[in-house]
Amino acid sequence: MITMLHLLGIDAGGTSTRAMVVRADGQCLGVGRGGRGNPVSDGVEAAAASIGQAVAGALERWGGAEPISGVALAIAGGSVAGGPSWLSPTLAALGVDAEIRVEPDLLAMFASGTHEPDGYGLVAGTGATAVRVRDGEVDATADGLGWLIGDSGSGFWIGHQVARAVAADLDGRGPSTSLTPAVLDALGITVEGPLVQGRVPALARFVSAVYGASPLRLAALAPLAFADPADEVADAIVTAAEEALAQAVLDVAEPGLRGPLVIGGGVATQARIREAVTTRVRAGGVDGEIHLVDDGLVGAGVLALRRAGVAPDAETFARLRDTTAAARQLG
Amino acid sequence: MITMLHLLGIDAGGTSTRAMVVRADGQCLGVGRGGRGNPVSDGVEAAAASIGQAVAGALERWGGAEPISGVALAIAGGSVAGGPSWLSPTLAALGVDAEIRVEPDLLAMFASGTHEPDGYGLVAGTGATAVRVRDGEVDATADGLGWLIGDSGSGFWIGHQVARAVAADLDGRGPSTSLTPAVLDALGITVEGPLVQGRVPALARFVSAVYGASPLRLAALAPLAFADPADEVADAIVTAAEEALAQAVLDVAEPGLRGPLVIGGGVATQARIREAVTTRVRAGGVDGEIHLVDDGLVGAGVLALRRAGVAPDAETFARLRDTTAAARQLG
Repeated sequence: MITMLHLLGIDAGGTSTRAMVVRADGQCLGVGRGGRGNPVSDGVEAAAASIGQAVAGALERWGGAEPISGVALAIAGGSVAGGPSWLSPTLAALGVDAEIRVEPDLLAMFASGTHEPDGYGLVAGTGATAVRVRDGEVDATADGLGWLIGDSGSGFWIGHQVARAVAADLDGRGPSTSLTPAVLDALGITVEGPLVQGRVPALARFVSAVYGASPLRLAALAPLAFADPADEVADAIVTAAEEALAQAVLDVAEPGLRGPLVIGGGVATQARIREAVTTRVRAGGVDGEIHLVDDGLVGAGVLALRRAGVAPDAETFARLRDTTAAARQLG
Repeated sequence: MITMLHLLGIDAGGTSTRAMVVRADGQCLGVGRGGRGNPVSDGVEAAAASIGQAVAGALERWGGAEPISGVALAIAGGSVAGGPSWLSPTLAALGVDAEIRVEPDLLAMFASGTHEPDGYGLVAGTGATAVRVRDGEVDATADGLGWLIGDSGSGFWIGHQVARAVAADLDGRGPSTSLTPAVLDALGITVEGPLVQGRVPALARFVSAVYGASPLRLAALAPLAFADPADEVADAIVTAAEEALAQAVLDVAEPGLRGPLVIGGGVATQARIREAVTTRVRAGGVDGEIHLVDDGLVGAGVLALRRAGVAPDAETFARLRDTTAAARQLG
């Protein structure tokens, strides 16, 4: 038997990092985890440490002695000046001396859901981005511009709208909403006390809480938008998020390009959002199969295989997907 | 001749601080300036130093020996725990040993425009707030909830909308606008280069510039919204700001309460905004005289006089306003 290639797939994210050792036949041999691994937002030293931890875990779980022939590193935010050389010493210290190829995180997410070369991807967690994939590469991108000027429909966006609705309610300038007691309760804010310059004291307490934390913490309020289906204000926020996410997909859709729609991220995979987005994009002509994914780990393995010249077919992809799921239970 | 009262009026802001010595007849005897003086956002030590600098300047300009009988300190953000005791040592070191009364900055802004006890105030600079004033006190407030969850129509709000419009244009998802070349030029961003994942390279450069600075820096883009009256995107942003600011006034308006509308702040006093807001609030029944003010300094003097029992009449107010304007030239 010929020794099969062994490769590393790494999905390095702004919250956590995952790595796997994958064999040319699609078998996932080990998964490891690490912390925040984005070199742009976290700095190259912290990112290298997190990725090193994940890779060390995957190698240890595997326990094999064959050399690693290639590394696919999926990260958001595009390229870092000087390429991935910032990661080479960390991997060399773990015995990995192979070319590192940086891949778009959105492409890894897409490739986590399908081995097909064409289709669409939608990721909405804290941020929100849609991509069109053609011939295995990202061909067009919509949104993903971050919390301050983009990411419409994302977890931050929903939490931000929730906070604005609560402020408007407390200020007497917006409709009453059950989001208000829910948010005040979540933040531990009391409502008692006399009016201050004509305003309820909970408003000043809420404003202090909002500005006392990072703006991105507003994403933590997003789940409250789904808590009371009868609340019209919350329903309008979630409906607007559905519209924005579906629109991002439709903005990259092209009649001539058909393929699956891969959906990932805590917001987009939420049942109500997922179903509404599916209905809307179907009406707009995006009619491929829907695949849900947890993250870009399987896709990082797919990209490692593809770059090594062993593009997975349907059977290899299914093996990679299933053995990765099993390895995650251990990794 | 009886010795007249001498008082200190202080307008301590998040950008700069102004102080004046005012005599009971409304004569402004000296003006001084200092740096950022908000104890909530800048910390009490830095705020005390800035205020001390402004007060020292005003006292030096005056050069008198009479005791200061009272201090009105206008600040945003309401009360600091323990009252204004954080400022007492600074003032004592300058020979001022008098009661310090903290006043809302919006009330000082209103009182900079009129000696009347009733009316409305609208301040829109980096932030945006409207107030109703009744019997010389703030009776109701609208917005002023900060850049993240409020301040609709403010300089930040306009600059933020400009940034979003530019991002949408560069992303091919929004209308073409002359804001795009204007903003890219202002930020020193070049447009040359190949597409990256289907996007123009200026988009990634713009995103880097936006996230590389404090969110509040977006307020610096606001003036560009007024640069090209023929641009529909910019016109829509400014029109929405006018609507939001007028709505804030109308949200505190009460048919039974009539009085002047005092307008302050770099955005609200801008000719186009001021005229549009005036037209809109007149249509909504707010029909008092319009007074424009630079800041809350004159009003801090008015409040100092009022709290000392010498509420200024029309003649005293006019003297205070005119002598303050003259003293500013020197302070």
